[in-house]
Amino acid sequence: MSSDILKTLHGDIELPVFMPVGTKGTVKAMPPSVLKELQVKIILGNTYHLYLRPGNELVKKLGGLHKFMGWDGPILTDSGGFQVFSLNELRKLTEDGVEFRSHIDGSKHYLTPELSIQIQDDLGADIKMVLDECPPYGADKNYLERSLALTTRWAKRSKQKWQELGSNGRLFAIVQGGMYPDLRERSLDELLEIGFSSYALGGFSVGEPKNEMYEALSSVMEKVKERKINTPIYMMGVGEPEDILFAVKHGVKMFDCVIPTRNARNGGLYTFNGKVSIKQARYSEDPEPLEPGCDCYTCRNFSKAYLRHLYMSGELLSYYLNTLHNLRFFMRFMDMLRTSIKNNDYDHFYADFLNNYNKDNV
Amino acid sequence: MSSDILKTLHGDIELPVFMPVGTKGTVKAMPPSVLKELQVKIILGNTYHLYLRPGNELVKKLGGLHKFMGWDGPILTDSGGFQVFSLNELRKLTEDGVEFRSHIDGSKHYLTPELSIQIQDDLGADIKMVLDECPPYGADKNYLERSLALTTRWAKRSKQKWQELGSNGRLFAIVQGGMYPDLRERSLDELLEIGFSSYALGGFSVGEPKNEMYEALSSVMEKVKERKINTPIYMMGVGEPEDILFAVKHGVKMFDCVIPTRNARNGGLYTFNGKVSIKQARYSEDPEPLEPGCDCYTCRNFSKAYLRHLYMSGELLSYYLNTLHNLRFFMRFMDMLRTSIKNNDYDHFYADFLNNYNKDNV
Repeated sequence: MSSDILKTLHGDIELPVFMPVGTKGTVKAMPPSVLKELQVKIILGNTYHLYLRPGNELVKKLGGLHKFMGWDGPILTDSGGFQVFSLNELRKLTEDGVEFRSHIDGSKHYLTPELSIQIQDDLGADIKMVLDECPPYGADKNYLERSLALTTRWAKRSKQKWQELGSNGRLFAIVQGGMYPDLRERSLDELLEIGFSSYALGGFSVGEPKNEMYEALSSVMEKVKERKINTPIYMMGVGEPEDILFAVKHGVKMFDCVIPTRNARNGGLYTFNGKVSIKQARYSEDPEPLEPGCDCYTCRNFSKAYLRHLYMSGELLSYYLNTLHNLRFFMRFMDMLRTSIKNNDYDHFYADFLNNYNKDNV
Repeated sequence: MSSDILKTLHGDIELPVFMPVGTKGTVKAMPPSVLKELQVKIILGNTYHLYLRPGNELVKKLGGLHKFMGWDGPILTDSGGFQVFSLNELRKLTEDGVEFRSHIDGSKHYLTPELSIQIQDDLGADIKMVLDECPPYGADKNYLERSLALTTRWAKRSKQKWQELGSNGRLFAIVQGGMYPDLRERSLDELLEIGFSSYALGGFSVGEPKNEMYEALSSVMEKVKERKINTPIYMMGVGEPEDILFAVKHGVKMFDCVIPTRNARNGGLYTFNGKVSIKQARYSEDPEPLEPGCDCYTCRNFSKAYLRHLYMSGELLSYYLNTLHNLRFFMRFMDMLRTSIKNNDYDHFYADFLNNYNKDNV
């Protein structure tokens, strides 16, 4: 286990890192200046959404995604694959690429590995992802086998396009293979042979039971260790604090997930004593801050009673204050986690965190 | 014409002043820290809304409205009358008070002048308003005559309750009388005889044509001058920059209105060159800030193309950035207006502003 630095063109990132999701050119409800205050170091942008609206060419014309959204820190963009496969029931998959319909207006589009890289290059992402096929949880082994072979061929084409463009920054490939250790290993080895800046684990957090995710994850991370890969492994779409703790223990270094922001908008708030559902009547007269000792603007200035009032009234400030706190929680959590690694105290931190976190989970 | 200071328990306010509306214990989408940065000096809270949710007794228990909503500047609360009369079709008006049903859950409530003052005292408002009856625009003269007599009797009861409570701060009465100069004068004189901290003009911006509003306003302000009232006159629910300019010219010193915040949420943005509807396709590739030279966070960091993208995508950040700019526009506008008064240059500022503002109104 180690705590390292990932260098990007927009700044260095201490690892392990959690990346808030800025789907459509904004981390929902958060001005970039606040993200900076919260110590957010890198955010994720969604290729699928930005391609459809406002369009990668427009973003490029306006100086790239950093300038467009007023964020001068690092940005990782996904490949669009996950959205094409999860938001589109009518997609048509071929060797060449995937045809899909826009969820906005039903218009037809065609995504290839090359186009995905082109879009990400137009956006100016610091870290780009190869296009992969994302099979649903429960797909049979035969299907997964063929799928990961396609993902490998697409990864190769992605890299080629990336090289042709002389694209700045880094290109990460995505390991697939479902919950099958042998398929995960094969996927990893095929991608290693092509060679990428680093490797991500796709196909997790797609509905599988936790124990299956944990088993598949630890087995593939065993292979990562055996191959002596020392670039940061990125687990896509994960996750809850307990999942991050488990994954970091097994060597994962990068995470992204919508949960802090999405839960915030639904009144689900993170504290070191467990999650709080702020809509509950028990908070209606509670004069205490959400998390005493938290240094965020929300906790320094407002009571749980006020947060509940805003939520119950459907006030816009509710989204702002809740999102701000949840992101700060994740940043503080990751900071403590990194410190514990530096101090060789990770196992203790892990146990201690879970002990408090699960004590009073409501 | 003069530019003065209004002293309150939560700070001094330079006049003339515009008060953003914080209906339910929040100026929609704006954290109080941002209001401070925008140089907002006083905000308005709605007695009706806060009485229904979360309830004045709860707010009192939690330390008052200032503490509850994290705003340490002055607060003016209205009396609840305007909402009772505009949101309730089934209200029952008697000499004693008005019965109405909650717009939230249909529950029955009964508002009296005494209860309104009690609520405002519980909230801890720096400036409280007497309960008045708010007749709709177009009510006949007979009705208005009886109504203003009731408003006078309620004002007397309000003052008595205010004195009984030993309530902190100021109590303003509300001049009614529709568009009839003689009724406005009578209302003013009856209230002057009782004696209040100052006087507000109610019953404007209720659907009347602008010329009628301007005539009724200038005639009542004539009477204010004749009576040598030197406390700040407050025109409730107004308004657009051109209305403020007209009213200030006639001696009005205080304003509140939802337009900067409500229009912001609908994509209607204020600039010194006129209003901008950010949803228009013409802004889709516009790299310029909304208002070059504006010192607000929105204009310093984002293009019109980005603001349009956020609006079209229904992103929460759209509400934040648009509201922030509109409020800053109103604060800058009022600041220039006050400066022009100090410099004996008001007429020039007035003409100049309108000239630019109406040039390119889209």
